[in-house]
Amino acid sequence: MSDSSRVVQENRDYTLFSWSVQNQLQPIHMTGGRGSHFFDGDGNTWLDFSAQLINLNIGHQHPQVLEAIKRQVDQLCFAGPSFATEPRGQLGRKLAEVTGLAKSFFTLGGAEANENAMKIARLYTGRDKIITRYRSYHGATMGAMTASGDPRRWPVEPGIPGIVRVFDPYCYRCPFGKTPDSCGRECVTHIEEVIQMEGPHSIAAIMVEGITGSNGLLVPPDDYYPRLRALCDKYGILLIDDEVMSGFGRTGTWLATQHYGIKPDIVTCAKGLTSGYMPLGAVIVSEDIAQFFESHMLFGGLTYSGHPVSCAAAVANLAVYEQENVFAHVLELGEHLAARLEAMRARYACVGDVRCKGLFSVLELVRDKASKEPLAPFNGSSPEMGLLAGHLKSRHLYAFSRFNMLWVCPPLVITREELDHGLNVIEEALARVDQALLPQTAATL
Amino acid sequence: MSDSSRVVQENRDYTLFSWSVQNQLQPIHMTGGRGSHFFDGDGNTWLDFSAQLINLNIGHQHPQVLEAIKRQVDQLCFAGPSFATEPRGQLGRKLAEVTGLAKSFFTLGGAEANENAMKIARLYTGRDKIITRYRSYHGATMGAMTASGDPRRWPVEPGIPGIVRVFDPYCYRCPFGKTPDSCGRECVTHIEEVIQMEGPHSIAAIMVEGITGSNGLLVPPDDYYPRLRALCDKYGILLIDDEVMSGFGRTGTWLATQHYGIKPDIVTCAKGLTSGYMPLGAVIVSEDIAQFFESHMLFGGLTYSGHPVSCAAAVANLAVYEQENVFAHVLELGEHLAARLEAMRARYACVGDVRCKGLFSVLELVRDKASKEPLAPFNGSSPEMGLLAGHLKSRHLYAFSRFNMLWVCPPLVITREELDHGLNVIEEALARVDQALLPQTAATL
Repeated sequence: MSDSSRVVQENRDYTLFSWSVQNQLQPIHMTGGRGSHFFDGDGNTWLDFSAQLINLNIGHQHPQVLEAIKRQVDQLCFAGPSFATEPRGQLGRKLAEVTGLAKSFFTLGGAEANENAMKIARLYTGRDKIITRYRSYHGATMGAMTASGDPRRWPVEPGIPGIVRVFDPYCYRCPFGKTPDSCGRECVTHIEEVIQMEGPHSIAAIMVEGITGSNGLLVPPDDYYPRLRALCDKYGILLIDDEVMSGFGRTGTWLATQHYGIKPDIVTCAKGLTSGYMPLGAVIVSEDIAQFFESHMLFGGLTYSGHPVSCAAAVANLAVYEQENVFAHVLELGEHLAARLEAMRARYACVGDVRCKGLFSVLELVRDKASKEPLAPFNGSSPEMGLLAGHLKSRHLYAFSRFNMLWVCPPLVITREELDHGLNVIEEALARVDQALLPQTAATL
Repeated sequence: MSDSSRVVQENRDYTLFSWSVQNQLQPIHMTGGRGSHFFDGDGNTWLDFSAQLINLNIGHQHPQVLEAIKRQVDQLCFAGPSFATEPRGQLGRKLAEVTGLAKSFFTLGGAEANENAMKIARLYTGRDKIITRYRSYHGATMGAMTASGDPRRWPVEPGIPGIVRVFDPYCYRCPFGKTPDSCGRECVTHIEEVIQMEGPHSIAAIMVEGITGSNGLLVPPDDYYPRLRALCDKYGILLIDDEVMSGFGRTGTWLATQHYGIKPDIVTCAKGLTSGYMPLGAVIVSEDIAQFFESHMLFGGLTYSGHPVSCAAAVANLAVYEQENVFAHVLELGEHLAARLEAMRARYACVGDVRCKGLFSVLELVRDKASKEPLAPFNGSSPEMGLLAGHLKSRHLYAFSRFNMLWVCPPLVITREELDHGLNVIEEALARVDQALLPQTAATL
């Protein structure tokens, strides 16, 4: 047995893999990486088109962050959450600066950040209900999972009480049956109807992903957030902005909502906060909320809150964004990506819609452009999606697909050449899907 | 402003601290540590009598673990949860070996481990209810918090449905009014009554801390676990053993329940798994449960599941336990600790009870030995507890106290001389408390 086979076998024999039927797994043995590429145990180099789980923003093995981690490990590897440490304070200051908010509470990941954001909103407002959206994912712990609209919540339902769900700004398949011409921003106005029927006095917060990620990358209309912010202000409801996936440069700004000129009351983040180098999440709250907890108990905590090494990794990672002008690169390369995706929509019959903001993008695939019939059903798969994924894998392009969608979310430091190479591979796959759909289209005519 | 004042101020200004009213905080700036000691920014050396949050089992800055972390950082700092990596497989194999169970699912901390354990138990059994104990803490995310009996759950109630709570093996204050002479193990027999009334077919699991930690360090009678195991077997209920605090040598064995000769179906852990050097938690499941997920979807996941650096830190940390014979040291020093605590109970009027297993111990303090009136009320504090804590702090002894209890849970590598020094400081404080209680005692006579 090769060394790599042994590692894969040991992982299969002794560990459980997320969101999987274990006997269907063929895990890749990762041995290392550099920038937008990683290496497997069979000597292959893969182009990483999903930045792992859309979190490895600065790419693999950035020397500056590795050094910062090792320095902190040598200095002080662990301090309990009640202690002040240098990197914890530095990171808190930096997050206040880039978000315009006041104080950070540190968790380990996005799920815990969202759990604590909901708890903080309830404690601060004295209200119980949280409005969330159907096409959303906020994490897998019970509170965050219930808050999610994603079908991954089904097995844990009924979950926590007090979650009320509303519809999404999903213009390609508008849940209100509207088109750009007939749209009256029902995706916002119906929320006010829900607020009135639920009782405004009972609603602590509206929690939304800055831009919805794993449920379809739904880029909202430009006036969506100003309208949502106004709605929150009208009823004294907090706006919780889940920037776990969309934050930290993924769209070319610190927060996706900064594109729309509004300020949330609470921001949650993880992923791009450290680019995954160390586990870390954060809840960042407004000055008003921070003031409230000066004289009220914050009922939340965890052993690793403010872990010194995680905070040091984040400080170094944020410095890379600034020193290497990563966000400017994202904005520029994002325009190129958007143009290429638009060209694919024009060229391939199976590309129903493309949505893109910075280097955060998705292709939504269909059997037929007119009917918009999805290439795979909601919460399901199909032979054609399997064909697509199989081709990408055979060309060592690592990309994330789900239902009838394919995400293009590479590390933010990807070069134009690397990006174009990956997009060319995707075009090969789309051509194959179009080919596979042909007889079926003929048969149904 | 001194450098240390600046760090404390920055932490206060920009970060939120767990379980606290923020304006009552005086955080210590930790700058480094070595073994059982840590250093503050004012040049003081503190003896760590709570191993931070009862998690820093191998003490501060163990060179072997620091080196292993740095090696892994240089090799591969991050891989997504769907990848096989060398340290992930190694750790899974080791955990199977030391627990006698089959496969590990990796989380980031104890809360997420317990969340996933409950989810796994529900998926595997097809049943919904989970029985937990009143004096328990399983973490702060919504599911884990609801499962806890600890009053920290009150602000998030009603929480998730399906949690049923039972009483504790708290012999000093038996909830059934029994004494050692009259005891019929009602702490177990009443659970069967609850099972019958709830419906055995509806109960997925009984989840208990191996030895209850932050709710009083309740060491169960020797036959408690064999009886509980038999009860689970009788009704097809899974036994989830939360070893987050009591595992990994804290009591001188890998799992506290190993003292009692039983095997749980699921073990959850964190804390001593890495000694806090890196954030990590794990759910370790039996062969039967592992087999079930070969052909059924595991509905759970997180971006950092199986983080390579966290896994590498754990592998190195577990190696330290074995290479340095840490558990033998714990068992030996634990006998000395138990003897000294017993002597304190005999010597000081305010020491009502002492409970100790390995280096996991607590003093329960009272105003009066006969009435057992607590030195501070449940979920409250008192001037006398403040006096005690203040004295320890003035002598730079870092220890954890809560309600009317004081924990003695140092790093497992503490020397006998260090332990004796800390215990001497505690004796000074107990003498002061006794002194403070004298006039009050006189007045009530």
